[in-house]
Amino acid sequence: MEIIRIPRIMQDTSGGHLLHGRTIGLVPTMGALHEGHLSLVRMAKAENSITVVSIFVNPRQFGPAEDFSRYPRDPEGDAEKLSREGIDILFSPDASLMYPAGFSTQVDVRGLSEGLCGMMRPDHFTGVATIVAKLFHIVRPTRAYFGQKDFQQTLVIKRMVRDLDMGLDVVVCPVIREVDGLAMSSRNAYLTQEERKAASAIHRSLLEASAAVKSGIIQGSSVKKLMMDVLGAEPLVSEVQYCSVYDPRTLNEVERINGEVLLALAVKIGNIRLIDNMLVSSGTGSASPANPLIP
Amino acid sequence: MEIIRIPRIMQDTSGGHLLHGRTIGLVPTMGALHEGHLSLVRMAKAENSITVVSIFVNPRQFGPAEDFSRYPRDPEGDAEKLSREGIDILFSPDASLMYPAGFSTQVDVRGLSEGLCGMMRPDHFTGVATIVAKLFHIVRPTRAYFGQKDFQQTLVIKRMVRDLDMGLDVVVCPVIREVDGLAMSSRNAYLTQEERKAASAIHRSLLEASAAVKSGIIQGSSVKKLMMDVLGAEPLVSEVQYCSVYDPRTLNEVERINGEVLLALAVKIGNIRLIDNMLVSSGTGSASPANPLIP
Repeated sequence: MEIIRIPRIMQDTSGGHLLHGRTIGLVPTMGALHEGHLSLVRMAKAENSITVVSIFVNPRQFGPAEDFSRYPRDPEGDAEKLSREGIDILFSPDASLMYPAGFSTQVDVRGLSEGLCGMMRPDHFTGVATIVAKLFHIVRPTRAYFGQKDFQQTLVIKRMVRDLDMGLDVVVCPVIREVDGLAMSSRNAYLTQEERKAASAIHRSLLEASAAVKSGIIQGSSVKKLMMDVLGAEPLVSEVQYCSVYDPRTLNEVERINGEVLLALAVKIGNIRLIDNMLVSSGTGSASPANPLIP
Repeated sequence: MEIIRIPRIMQDTSGGHLLHGRTIGLVPTMGALHEGHLSLVRMAKAENSITVVSIFVNPRQFGPAEDFSRYPRDPEGDAEKLSREGIDILFSPDASLMYPAGFSTQVDVRGLSEGLCGMMRPDHFTGVATIVAKLFHIVRPTRAYFGQKDFQQTLVIKRMVRDLDMGLDVVVCPVIREVDGLAMSSRNAYLTQEERKAASAIHRSLLEASAAVKSGIIQGSSVKKLMMDVLGAEPLVSEVQYCSVYDPRTLNEVERINGEVLLALAVKIGNIRLIDNMLVSSGTGSASPANPLIP
C-alpha cells in the first residue's frame, strides 16, 4: 500500500493508471475506520483494478459549533486496517494542500441539501459536495463508494455527479450495523456505556416503522408516530432533530405511502448526534431495503 | 470535422483520445464566431493533438433582463469557419441535455465573482463557472482557451480550476481588435453604424490610461479620470458601469499603482453593453500587455 499526501502526486498517479486502461475505485472517508468503511473498501476492491481510500477530516463540512477538532482520528490504526485489506493507495492530504490561501470555490446542490441534516447543518452539504468534487478530480475514480447511512449525502453526491457530468459511478452500499442494530459510525466512539445501550432505540424505531409500512399502514404521520414513540421511551434520547417518512428521491415528507419510502432520523443521545435510515417498500411483505446498490 | 450533440458521446470520444495519450484543447464559445474566437482555435490547434470547440449559448449566465433570446446565433456560419480551421470536433449540445429536469447544482467562486461585471450581473459568474465545469468534465481537455477580453471570467475560471483541482491548464489569449481598436465581440453585431463608430472611444480611453501609467502616473484616481474623460466626450456612451484601475489578481481597485495593473471598463453604447480591458505595467515604458499567456 502506497501512502500519498500531495494532491498533485495522487492526480498524476491516477492519470498513469487510467492511461493503462485500469479502473479506479475510490472510498472517501474521514478516517477512524470501522467495519462500515471496510465494507465499502471490499466492494471497491472487488469491482476495480486499483483501490484508493482517502482519509481527510474536512473542516468545511463541520459547523462552527460542531465536533471538528475532537472528531476521532486514528491514522496509524487506519493505515494498518487498510494495509490488511490490500488496498493500493491511501490518499491522506494535509488541509493546507486541500484549501490553499485564497480558496474561494464552492459546489452547491440546492434543494436536496436543504432538508433533514441540512436544516440543522446549513453549510454541511456545501462542504461535502466541494470536497467530494475535489477528491473526484484528484483521484479520478471510475467508481466511488458511499454508505447508505448518510443517505442524504449519497443523493447530493449523485445529483452533483449527474448535473456536472462528472462521468463516474456513485455506488451506495448497505448500512453496516452492530449486533444490537446500531449503525456503525465513527461518532459512536463518543458514547458512554449507558448512551451506547440507549442508542439501540434508533434501530428499533426504524424496525417498528418498517414493519408497519410493510404491513400496509399508509399514513406517513402514523408511521412517524410509531418511531417517535420508540424514541420517546428512551430517556437518554435528548433531542429528535428530524424523524419521518420521506420520498427517497426528493426527500420530501410523504403522507400517503405508496411504493418505496425512506425512514430517516437524526437524534441526540446525550450530546452526541446520530443518524440512521432504512428504505422500505409498502405492503410488499418482502425483506426491507430494496437493492441498496443504486448505480 | 465531427459534430457531436450528445454530452455522453463527447465524453466517451474524449476518453478514447486520452487513452491513446492524446492531448485535447478546448475552446468554449457561445458561437457567433469572430476572429477573436478563431485566434483561440488556432492556439488550441497548435498546442494539442485534438481540438474541440464547444458552442453553447448558456441560458444560466444571462440575467432575466439580458439578451439571451436575441444573442446572435449563426450555426451554419460557425460550422463552416471551424471546418475551415481544421478542428477535430464541434461540440454543440442542446440545452435540454445540459440542464436536464431537476438540475440543481452550481459552482460559485466567491470574491472574484462579485466586483466589476458581477456587480451588474449578480448570477453571471455562477452560470459561467457551472457551465465551464460541465464542459471540462464532458470534454476533459488538457488545456482550455479563453480570451483576455473577458478578464474577470478568466480569473474566475483559473481560480475554480485551482480550487477544485481540475488538473488542466487555462490558457488566456490576447484581445483581438478591429482596425480602430474595438475589441472583437459577438455583441458588436448589435451596434448601429453610428454606435459602432462611437464604440472606438472604449479603446481610446484604455490607450490614454495605459500611456499615463507607463509615463509614471501612480494615482489610480487620476488614471481613472483620464478614462472617464475620453468616455464622457462620446455622446453615445449612455452609461459607464465600471471603469477603473484594478489589481489583476484580486480585482480590487488600486489607488497607488505599483507594478502591473488592469485597466478595465464596462459601458453602454446606446443599449448595448460592451467591456474591454488592458494590462499595463507602471513606468516601464515597455509595450503594453505583459505576456498574456498566463498558464
